[in-house]
Amino acid sequence: MEGARETTGREPTSTYRELEEKNVQHLLDRSIKFRHKIDKDMVMPESSKKDMILIPSLALNLLLLYPLFVGCKKWELLSWSRRAAAEAEAVASVSCSGHGRAYLDGITVDGMPVCECNSCFGGPNCSEVIAGCPADVDSGDPLFLEPFWMQRAASSAVLIAGWHRMSYSFNDNSSISQELENHIRKVHAIVKNAVTDRFIVFGAGSTQLLNAAVHALSMDNSSPPSAVVASVPFYPKLKVSYKQQTDFFSSLGYKFYGDTSMRKNPSDVSMNAIEFVTSPNNPDGKLRKKVLRGESVRAIHDHAYYWPHFTGIPTPADEDIMIFTLSKLTGHAGTRFGWALIKDEAVYRRMLTYSDESCYGVSRDTQRLPGSNVRGKKTRIVTQSLEMLE
Amino acid sequence: MEGARETTGREPTSTYRELEEKNVQHLLDRSIKFRHKIDKDMVMPESSKKDMILIPSLALNLLLLYPLFVGCKKWELLSWSRRAAAEAEAVASVSCSGHGRAYLDGITVDGMPVCECNSCFGGPNCSEVIAGCPADVDSGDPLFLEPFWMQRAASSAVLIAGWHRMSYSFNDNSSISQELENHIRKVHAIVKNAVTDRFIVFGAGSTQLLNAAVHALSMDNSSPPSAVVASVPFYPKLKVSYKQQTDFFSSLGYKFYGDTSMRKNPSDVSMNAIEFVTSPNNPDGKLRKKVLRGESVRAIHDHAYYWPHFTGIPTPADEDIMIFTLSKLTGHAGTRFGWALIKDEAVYRRMLTYSDESCYGVSRDTQRLPGSNVRGKKTRIVTQSLEMLE
Repeated sequence: MEGARETTGREPTSTYRELEEKNVQHLLDRSIKFRHKIDKDMVMPESSKKDMILIPSLALNLLLLYPLFVGCKKWELLSWSRRAAAEAEAVASVSCSGHGRAYLDGITVDGMPVCECNSCFGGPNCSEVIAGCPADVDSGDPLFLEPFWMQRAASSAVLIAGWHRMSYSFNDNSSISQELENHIRKVHAIVKNAVTDRFIVFGAGSTQLLNAAVHALSMDNSSPPSAVVASVPFYPKLKVSYKQQTDFFSSLGYKFYGDTSMRKNPSDVSMNAIEFVTSPNNPDGKLRKKVLRGESVRAIHDHAYYWPHFTGIPTPADEDIMIFTLSKLTGHAGTRFGWALIKDEAVYRRMLTYSDESCYGVSRDTQRLPGSNVRGKKTRIVTQSLEMLE
Repeated sequence: MEGARETTGREPTSTYRELEEKNVQHLLDRSIKFRHKIDKDMVMPESSKKDMILIPSLALNLLLLYPLFVGCKKWELLSWSRRAAAEAEAVASVSCSGHGRAYLDGITVDGMPVCECNSCFGGPNCSEVIAGCPADVDSGDPLFLEPFWMQRAASSAVLIAGWHRMSYSFNDNSSISQELENHIRKVHAIVKNAVTDRFIVFGAGSTQLLNAAVHALSMDNSSPPSAVVASVPFYPKLKVSYKQQTDFFSSLGYKFYGDTSMRKNPSDVSMNAIEFVTSPNNPDGKLRKKVLRGESVRAIHDHAYYWPHFTGIPTPADEDIMIFTLSKLTGHAGTRFGWALIKDEAVYRRMLTYSDESCYGVSRDTQRLPGSNVRGKKTRIVTQSLEMLE
């Protein structure tokens, strides 16, 4: 265009010859100029503008395609599990000011879970302190361990399918998960707080195991009832003292006789007795030993607190009947899971029968503890809790 | 370039004038030609090649960005739950020839879950039939309902966070989920198989509730023991007859007296008696009524099978103590969950105490039944099971 303007803008002001020469020169110049212009166009200023779009566009595609094929294979794999996963994250994101929590199986308003406030807190997000509310100090709720598991959200989460373990028993016909038993032995072996070459029975919390043990031991007694004793202060397990518990089941086999110190001569007890030994003791935290001596005295050692985050571990416990609970190891009190390490096979069989007769074993959903164990990643919650012990 | 060749390729063969004219004409022609070329270049054949990349690239950008912002919000939401979800889907995809299943909490080889075969099947993928293996016909395993839940994989899956319900109790200080209780009442109301204006106690399967009921009723008896009776054929619940169960707990409060027909005069029983009434009965499936009559006879109605997928429902059951179990309603026997509908408050309180004293209630993980209840979607497994009843 510019070229065009030049020609039209010129007036003939000289002779034909001059004009010729000028024309020739002008046209030659212009031919050069045009050729340059063409060459310049070949370097395409127009399409270089497109490069400014094309290159980022290609880069963005690479960025977006990468995770689908390399980074997060899981994204494409997820189908039926996605909804449950999204719902769990949605409810976990509900803020309750650190004084409560919303649960998928909890109270809902318009179908959405709302905050369930800890005692002494109220309001939609548990931010309001309830005036003059007495804190329940002896509930023993292990909520102080919640943050520990929240920090391990990914490795402690578990997705349970609708058809998970519908059978009455595991495929070895038992009601005890062999995998979980292995995990428990492993944890004891690492922590060195108990000898594990024993039989293991699972219970719905140590509560049930204490009952099972008393029952099993009393069956050894040819002249019932056996005297069930313990040393004060009694462990107010779940606010239920041994006495209350033992009395409640009003068995032919055993009777609560109170404090060990009430026995005339602890060094020689002739009658059949079953002594609860809580070590470390709650509330005083002392490591306890059996008080009563004698042929016919059997002891049940409650080692709920015998873990490094509660006490020093001078030596691995090596008693006939040792009872542990998940409530104190990992803080999952609501899960109601405990186990007993038992030396004597006959006692083990009776405790197993007790568990089966009373509840047909521990819920398979309970035995499926949070945290999975796939691809060799030992992330089951029992094993993870070792980090807590470090 | 072409132009350049033309000029250099020419020999001067004529007079200056001719040359001038030719030159002018030639150069003028060429200037036109060049201008056309320029115009052609302006239409950019070169960069139009780029359009063939740019346009699809931009289209792909949109395609990839769409799900992130519109389609699958869940994708971006999922973070800590993704691993558990992916692991659950991975293990669910392990094929066991329909004669077994792999579980995340099951047997692992090199850290990967392997098939756990149903009885009478073996091999890595449970495809091998074990010769001469006797099928266990009275296990009552409700595995025939597995496909039902597999078809509802998305709505019945549940993701449990590592910090789920760690407390001993729900925030109303009970050990019973109010939400689950509501679901149970709802199902009975829809199915019309039981009157629900009653107290509800949860149990670790109906096994525990039967024990709790016997215990609670025997406490009413001022002159123990109460006679526990049932009508033959006895329901081989989990292969444990009522007799075995009752005898095992060798209580001061009750004693097993055998079959109701053994009572001299069923129409007038003066002694304190507790009668198990299993209706529908297993194995004969008959709807049963209480056999013993008399002031001091109390009955425990085991209605495990009183659901439309097992029997006709002539009328809503309206007994003093009615016991139901998830094992028969949804097929989740392994979950060990049952409930009792109780008319009398005193009996209810004693059964509740029994549950608390024996296990401190049912595991919160168990009460968190598969299937969630978020955003008004009533997908809890108890409610979903209604589809089975249709």
